[in-house]
Amino acid sequence: QDTAQPAPDAAAEPWLASLITDSPQAGFDLAITMARKAVTTTQTDKDTLHKLRPNYAHDPQSLIGVSGVAATWFATIAAANGYWRE
Amino acid sequence: QDTAQPAPDAAAEPWLASLITDSPQAGFDLAITMARKAVTTTQTDKDTLHKLRPNYAHDPQSLIGVSGVAATWFATIAAANGYWRE
Amino acid sequence: QDTAQPAPDAAAEPWLASLITDSPQAGFDLAITMARKAVTTTQTDKDTLHKLRPNYAHDPQSLIGVSGVAATWFATIAAANGYWRE
Amino acid sequence: QDTAQPAPDAAAEPWLASLITDSPQAGFDLAITMARKAVTTTQTDKDTLHKLRPNYAHDPQSLIGVSGVAATWFATIAAANGYWRE
Amino acid sequence: QDTAQPAPDAAAEPWLASLITDSPQAGFDLAITMARKAVTTTQTDKDTLHKLRPNYAHDPQSLIGVSGVAATWFATIAAANGYWRE
Amino acid sequence: QDTAQPAPDAAAEPWLASLITDSPQAGFDLAITMARKAVTTTQTDKDTLHKLRPNYAHDPQSLIGVSGVAATWFATIAAANGYWRE
Repeated sequence: QDTAQPAPDAAAEPWLASLITDSPQAGFDLAITMARKAVTTTQTDKDTLHKLRPNYAHDPQSLIGVSGVAATWFATIAAANGYWRE
Repeated sequence: QDTAQPAPDAAAEPWLASLITDSPQAGFDLAITMARKAVTTTQTDKDTLHKLRPNYAHDPQSLIGVSGVAATWFATIAAANGYWRE
Repeated sequence: QDTAQPAPDAAAEPWLASLITDSPQAGFDLAITMARKAVTTTQTDKDTLHKLRPNYAHDPQSLIGVSGVAATWFATIAAANGYWRE
Repeated sequence: QDTAQPAPDAAAEPWLASLITDSPQAGFDLAITMARKAVTTTQTDKDTLHKLRPNYAHDPQSLIGVSGVAATWFATIAAANGYWRE
Repeated sequence: QDTAQPAPDAAAEPWLASLITDSPQAGFDLAITMARKAVTTTQTDKDTLHKLRPNYAHDPQSLIGVSGVAATWFATIAAANGYWRE
Repeated sequence: QDTAQPAPDAAAEPWLASLITDSPQAGFDLAITMARKAVTTTQTDKDTLHKLRPNYAHDPQSLIGVSGVAATWFATIAAANGYWRE
């Protein structure tokens, strides 16, 4: 987890084959997925994660934060897809 | 909700067909829409959402946060539209 | 307010016709305007907004936050204007 | 202060004629200037600003926030200058 | 640590030879690595870091913050890799 | 400190001659340097800075914030260097 260029084949379960999606909405969904994956990479214990969820889902500041984080992931995905312009 | 490339057709109700808008102002409105959609995707219970709203709408920090999040969504939409230059 | 592509003509009062400005300083002013518009879109009650203002204008954290938000709006406006290079 | 395209000539005192600087370091200084200008535009009372300064200058979180804000302003200035590549 | 252009050869242990990765997933892993490296550069004491970890890994705000930070690192890595488009 | 285009020659000690570095790792180091310089520009008293350091270096939120700030500075440096692609 601390090497600069981890071999993708060595990963436990591949989950991100491409940033390309069929539509902006699928890109939005991928942004949410990547935002969550960054969280589960940091806190790997599923029980702890489930206990935290009701907590932040009722905190306005956290929900705004979630939206900002999703926007940052989406920006990269949208650029990768040429903004689905055609 | 945890697959890397969710099929767009499988989504309950399509809401984001394109990032292209007729004007900067419509792009601004779409940014607000996307910011909210990221919140409702995280907290799906409408009653909880309505209880939280008066809360954050009176908190200066939250309102500034909302503006920053909207700015991040808008940046992508504006790039997608070539900044509505002509 | 929750449709993906709101018709710009349907908006109560058009306020954002273009991202193009005559100078960087006018772009800076537009960034401040857009940052505020995102706030007033979230909290539409003018009395509440006026009560909140003295509050955040005396809080260092909020003022720094305001500057970061303005910077994010400005980034898009500057790109739209080709950075006013000539 | 609330018009979408304020006439630059109407501004009290022009302070931002261009984003172009002679060097990265001058661009860094301009980023700090713009970050401060966004603050003074929000809190125009100079006495209040001077009272707040010792406050945030001793708060680690605020100082980190200031650096993040400066980085965001600098990103735009650097792009405007073609990153001073030659 | 405070010179503008530190000689890479002088670094204790080289850890970042390239931003290029084989896949988006390896880019995601590199983003996590860079996010952590920025933390360990600031807090070099390993014992302190280990004490802090359970702390932030149970705080929803921190976990959201971690995801936002990872997204920012990933944006640069994705651009470097041309978004792994082919 | 408040002029829009400070003359670079007038600066007390030049510290940022270029954004170009030999490698990604040197770019990472420069990002850390710029993040710190923005802090020392705001809080110029070295004694105060040294007192603050143990403080934020033990606060998880601050350490995550530091990483996000470094990522923002690094984004600009990486773009300036064409992502060190060859």
